Amino acid sequence: MPAETLTAERILEATEEVLRRYGPAKATVVDVARVLGVSHGSVYRHFRTKAALREAVTHRWLTRAEDALAELVETSDRPAAEKLRSWFAGLFEAKRHKAGDDPELFATYGVLIDGSSGVVEQHIDVLIGQVRVIVEEGVRGGEFTAADPGVTARALFDATCRFHDPAYAPEWRLPTIQAEFDAVMDLLLRGLRA
Amino acid sequence: MPAETLTAERILEATEEVLRRYGPAKATVVDVARVLGVSHGSVYRHFRTKAALREAVTHRWLTRAEDALAELVETSDRPAAEKLRSWFAGLFEAKRHKAGDDPELFATYGVLIDGSSGVVEQHIDVLIGQVRVIVEEGVRGGEFTAADPGVTARALFDATCRFHDPAYAPEWRLPTIQAEFDAVMDLLLRGLRA
Repeated sequence: MPAETLTAERILEATEEVLRRYGPAKATVVDVARVLGVSHGSVYRHFRTKAALREAVTHRWLTRAEDALAELVETSDRPAAEKLRSWFAGLFEAKRHKAGDDPELFATYGVLIDGSSGVVEQHIDVLIGQVRVIVEEGVRGGEFTAADPGVTARALFDATCRFHDPAYAPEWRLPTIQAEFDAVMDLLLRGLRA
Repeated sequence: MPAETLTAERILEATEEVLRRYGPAKATVVDVARVLGVSHGSVYRHFRTKAALREAVTHRWLTRAEDALAELVETSDRPAAEKLRSWFAGLFEAKRHKAGDDPELFATYGVLIDGSSGVVEQHIDVLIGQVRVIVEEGVRGGEFTAADPGVTARALFDATCRFHDPAYAPEWRLPTIQAEFDAVMDLLLRGLRA
């Protein structure tokens, strides 16, 4: 495979594949290069260190979820309460899907994330920013009351942590989890009502 | 120390001391017996296995928090909203205190708890039962609306997990944590209001 077609995106795809296959402890840049049929020097031309490559692949994994939810924020023909419920349901569904369908990769990203907290903080800030946009929309439309939408957005995110924090992944398979999610959302949406 | 004064409570105190000193991996029944100046046979007369002793000491650790909060539920001269906020603040404070003042013992109980999930489930049921009593009181007094107080109590407990689940202990030292707790409680209490 000629080096000129080697893009950062292709390297990141191969890295994810290698991580899935060998796990975070054993995966090396040489493995990534082998999957791509290039020298490891070619990989280093795009990502200067193994740590930089791992951070980039973690960032990519986290932003995939952000992008899908951002679309939901932008559709503006629904009441804010409904949008907010869909947003948190979408976040929960995406996390549950990742944890359930590909548990090895999910665990792998758990390890990578522990080693690069800046990336996670940035991810959480982006997500809370999206919640804030919906809260502000609800306040403008007279549907919600929130003295400080930024504080309220953070409170909503904190109050739903059981349904998006990977620490709770084992509980996402419980038969009662969907009803528990609904009960928390009902209470929070009542609390927002103007 | 004569064996006849040996009570289950004294054995549990000594066990906690031994766990604090050696950690859960190394602590043995022989160590507990040595601290008490008795034979390990005397300890086994009260607790038939090492596992039974560990479960009893974990149960004791968890019920200490329950008893303090139960008192709060029984005082009936305050509005339910105020009681509910105090109850969750008391739970958070107790957990934070344990995690901050004696981190080795807190970590030790974390390990023991992972190995005896029945004890934890029972503890959570007791706590949610206390929340339910306050919610029911609020509904009776016309202060709260809750179609099913049991479901609402569970939702309140789930929505505050960041402020009592030991998985979040590292975040309890953040300077913003008290403001974040207040914001979540404000939202939840608004959601309960009749």
